Amino acid sequence: MTEVNLSSHAFDQAVLLAPTEPNQFSGHTSEPYANMVGPFGGITAATLLNAVMQHPERIGEPVSLTVNFAGPIETGEFIIEAVPVRTNRSTQHWNLLLRQNGTVATTATVFCAVRRETWSEQELAAPSAPAPDTLERLPTEGRRGWISNYDFRFVTGGYDPARPYESSSSRSLLWIRDHPRRALDFPGLAAIGDSFFPRLFTRRQQFVPAGTVSLTMYFHTDSTQLAQIGDDYLLAEAVANQTRNNYFDQSAHLWSRDGQLLLSTTQIVYFKE
Amino acid sequence: MTEVNLSSHAFDQAVLLAPTEPNQFSGHTSEPYANMVGPFGGITAATLLNAVMQHPERIGEPVSLTVNFAGPIETGEFIIEAVPVRTNRSTQHWNLLLRQNGTVATTATVFCAVRRETWSEQELAAPSAPAPDTLERLPTEGRRGWISNYDFRFVTGGYDPARPYESSSSRSLLWIRDHPRRALDFPGLAAIGDSFFPRLFTRRQQFVPAGTVSLTMYFHTDSTQLAQIGDDYLLAEAVANQTRNNYFDQSAHLWSRDGQLLLSTTQIVYFKE
Repeated sequence: MTEVNLSSHAFDQAVLLAPTEPNQFSGHTSEPYANMVGPFGGITAATLLNAVMQHPERIGEPVSLTVNFAGPIETGEFIIEAVPVRTNRSTQHWNLLLRQNGTVATTATVFCAVRRETWSEQELAAPSAPAPDTLERLPTEGRRGWISNYDFRFVTGGYDPARPYESSSSRSLLWIRDHPRRALDFPGLAAIGDSFFPRLFTRRQQFVPAGTVSLTMYFHTDSTQLAQIGDDYLLAEAVANQTRNNYFDQSAHLWSRDGQLLLSTTQIVYFKE
Repeated sequence: MTEVNLSSHAFDQAVLLAPTEPNQFSGHTSEPYANMVGPFGGITAATLLNAVMQHPERIGEPVSLTVNFAGPIETGEFIIEAVPVRTNRSTQHWNLLLRQNGTVATTATVFCAVRRETWSEQELAAPSAPAPDTLERLPTEGRRGWISNYDFRFVTGGYDPARPYESSSSRSLLWIRDHPRRALDFPGLAAIGDSFFPRLFTRRQQFVPAGTVSLTMYFHTDSTQLAQIGDDYLLAEAVANQTRNNYFDQSAHLWSRDGQLLLSTTQIVYFKE
């Protein structure tokens, strides 16, 4: 099940891991996916998930992922330990640690499963939105490096520090895809699932120091469906629920262009005033 | 920071832990909180959180909790290992494992923080609901043991296998509190946060084998606020987003009677047909 991806896309370079010993991989931070402090959280989530995807003992495909951002990741090498802590007949639970110089910077858990066709029903319908090619691409000049790796097409709830506006809500609705285009896979979907600007920026239209503390994603898809979507835009919606005393939580969802809900995600974000 | 709770409430007995060695506690499954297979997931979540609450090295109060139900918990003793994997100035990340006979049954991560007063805003308002004392309590006779430890007052979206009805939605709105009444604390809130019946039962008004695989909670509260709420009812809303090929995710929220959002929670649930 080990796959070596030789793509020259910056994303594939960023999540590239080399197996070093059993349950262990080494990787390196990626300049194109840099954020204010350390890497864009989504690329860290994708890299951790990639360790499981590459692991020779993996069974099934990802169903859930939780990443805890415990401390800053410095520019340079890191080591990921990925341990299958419990393997059942068709399900598997993983614990992961990302360390630099022996210090834990990130922890994660992943759950994979072999899924079978069952009664299915989507309750959360995709919001209606104008087609992405009728919308302007978010300008990325002068912004954090990672942002230029995505093509953001906002319907509502954009945030551009150079062009703030009055807002009474944190809600955003937008189309998004990798830039340059890249065929969707689980790590790519995980990264896009963390590409929402902190809701506090959207709500208040101003920057404050902020960073995700814990992130959870549920994958409602499989590799066959992802291959069908290819490098098309995804429709994305995000909103904050409660902001209180240094932390706020945000909920977000991603749909394919034909309205399939692919990902449900929540995160809790620290902010300082 | 170690607290020994000598309450005779069945909940306090169920989450009771004895420190055995550094970072390790022993506990025992509780008959009153039994579910179909093993304990009610909420009591397991509460017990894991209680290990952190009791740990002498804890700083701050819980902000997030993720529990992965990796395998069944058998009736009897279990060992919880709770390790502070990263402690910063005012935040702390924990990794937990629950084992029986050396086998991992449950994994968890907890994030705690010392919070300071900041700009705050609740975006997700409480739904309107009739007062709990105008609603009938859900009958608990003949149902899973743990259900009788709660006073459920459904506004909409109940599920009683003896009285199924036609339903086109998984949404439930209800009041809930411990029965007998118990003053709210973080473990108590965590357990109530997992007290929603699987959304598939609500949607289809029938039982299928189902179990939570991974559960995440964000606490928007503190011990002072919880003490003010005391043993009052909480308003609870839950809905499924996507059901597909053996798994569905559900989102839920808990508010105090005066409309404060206390908890946002999501989970991914396995089901079999």
